[in-house]
Formats: sequence, structure tokens, C-alpha cells
Amino acid sequence: MAHITLPEGFPGIRGPMLFRPETAKPMNELVEVLLLGPSTLSRGERELIATYVSVRNECTYCHSIHGAIAAHHLGGNESVVDCVKLDFEHAEISEKMKALLAIAGKVQLGGKHVTSEDIERARQLGATDLEIHDTVLIAAFFCLCNRYVDGLGTWTPEDPDFYRQRAKIVAANGYAAATLTPGAR
Amino acid sequence: MAHITLPEGFPGIRGPMLFRPETAKPMNELVEVLLLGPSTLSRGERELIATYVSVRNECTYCHSIHGAIAAHHLGGNESVVDCVKLDFEHAEISEKMKALLAIAGKVQLGGKHVTSEDIERARQLGATDLEIHDTVLIAAFFCLCNRYVDGLGTWTPEDPDFYRQRAKIVAANGYAAATLTPGAR
Repeated sequence: MAHITLPEGFPGIRGPMLFRPETAKPMNELVEVLLLGPSTLSRGERELIATYVSVRNECTYCHSIHGAIAAHHLGGNESVVDCVKLDFEHAEISEKMKALLAIAGKVQLGGKHVTSEDIERARQLGATDLEIHDTVLIAAFFCLCNRYVDGLGTWTPEDPDFYRQRAKIVAANGYAAATLTPGAR
Repeated sequence: MAHITLPEGFPGIRGPMLFRPETAKPMNELVEVLLLGPSTLSRGERELIATYVSVRNECTYCHSIHGAIAAHHLGGNESVVDCVKLDFEHAEISEKMKALLAIAGKVQLGGKHVTSEDIERARQLGATDLEIHDTVLIAAFFCLCNRYVDGLGTWTPEDPDFYRQRAKIVAANGYAAATLTPGAR
């Protein structure tokens, strides 16, 4: 049971977002710029960063839904998402993405863990300043989301199919529309 | 030196915010709802939550500027802010605030650290669902900001007077205007 009284039937971040629409609005705007906006990183790649940070923070709701959205954008390839969750250095992703995920993992630990060597590795593999910036901010944003979801003790569905279905809705409609649409799916 | 090329002369979060105004806009909207919007917690109390989480994350820029803003709103009382940074259970703040800071400290560690007992303590001391929600989200938001500021290796001024001067500008004009106003102060 959640730590505060949230609207019933809305799992994960959606309960607190419906409870407090004033804060949900800018949060959805931020995630839409970061994950859906124009970028030289694909939607699937950006969702992998969100997924990886959420796994490291052990936030089941977030890594399940963003992992499902990542897989949706990567042609339904759930195995690459699972591999990123467990050991991204051996996943079938670009070397640049591995360097960006390494930075995201450092951000998850704390900002000061990011080293010049981490940045240099990414840059050598072609990462731009904007890609490095967005990687750091996506990682930091999911450190927020993971704490928001688990710190309020929200409901986490267990059925993987729940997340696969939601992923299609989010991919088609964006975060703001999907989050605030009534109904568990 | 910052890890990416940021506009010169803007310390802390202001450099990355000027670098990426598309993400700065919703971030400033969120912080303004949380720290400046209508609330049964005072502006000083909410800044104390931001300060305490930033100290725990060892983010010098964030705990210095939000500590200075907290002191500004608490009648210039810097000693209560210093006490919250070091040992809030013995600070001259309300028992309810101590319970909320305890929750914020758990959120800083990770969302799952928050227990029913932490929530019950706050509730017994009069905390409402909205106050608990906002405490969790302020704490989570500063886990984002601290990582954003330090993960990009931004410039951190050392002079305490810098933060005292900035605090007055933020208190008078709000975050969005203060962050995006050119000039180091």
C-alpha cells in the first residue's frame, strides 16, 4: 500500500502524478524533451539509459516500463534490453552507447563519480557535448523518478504483459497523455 | 573545468541550464511549484529540505545556494541552517520538520529506504499527505539537481558572500528569472 492516499488503479509514477498535477506537468514536459524530443540519440537508445539507471536504483516499475518502451523502439528486441540491464558492456549496442551508459552509471552513484576519462571515452567514440549533457540529465532525472515512485511506496504490477501494453500506448501518445489517461492501462 | 563546453561565468546549475534551455524551462517550473508555490510548509522549510539533501549528496554548489536562500527566508539565521546540515535532529526547527527531513534523508539513499514508521512519525506530528508528497519530491528533485551539477563538473564559487548575494536575487525574482539572467550574480 502506498505511503499516502493516491488515486486507485494507477501504478508507479502515475498515482503521484494524478495526486499532484501541478508537479506532473513540468515533469512530463522534461521527460518528453529528453526522451521524445529531437536528438541524435534514437528513442530506443535514450530509453536504454532510463532503463539502466532504473535497474541500478532497483526501481522495478521504472525499469520494467522503460525497458518495455526501449524494446518497442528497438523492433521488439527484449533480449538486448535484458542484456543492458545485466551487463551492458556485452550488449549488442554501439560502442558509443556503452560509453554513455558508463557515464549514466556513474551519475546514478553520484555526480562526482563521473571522471574526465569517462567523458573522453565517450568523446573518442563520437559523442557530442549535447549527447553527454542529455545522458547526464536523463540519468539524473531517473534518479528522481525512481525515488519518487519507491519513496511513496506506489503500486508495481508484476505481469510483464502489463508493461508491454503500456509501452505501446506511451510510444504512440507520449508520456503526458499516457500518464494522465484514466485506466490502469 | 566542466566536462562539456558551457557558457562562461555561470556557476553551478546555471551553466547547463543556459546550454540547454529546452530542459531548463520545465526544471525551473518544477522547482518553482515545489519551493515557491502555495504550501503549508514555509519557503524556508522547503529550502531546508533542498539544503539537507544536497549536503548528503555532497553537492557544494546546491547546499551553499539553497542554504543561503533558506537562511534568507529564516530571518538571516545561518546557524539553524548549519545545524540542519550537520545534525538536524538537534536543530531549532519543528518536530514535524525533523520527521520530514528524516524522510528526505531516506529518499536521498533511495526510495525503498522510506519506511511506514518514517511516514507514521511525520503523520503523528501533523504532516499531511501533500506535505509528505512534496517532501519526497523535493528530495528526489535535488537528487537530480546535485547529479546534474556535479556530473557535468560545473563551476562552484567558494566565497560564501557569493551565495548570500544570489540568495537575495532568487528570493526576490524566483528561480527561472534568476537562473537565466546573464551575469555571474
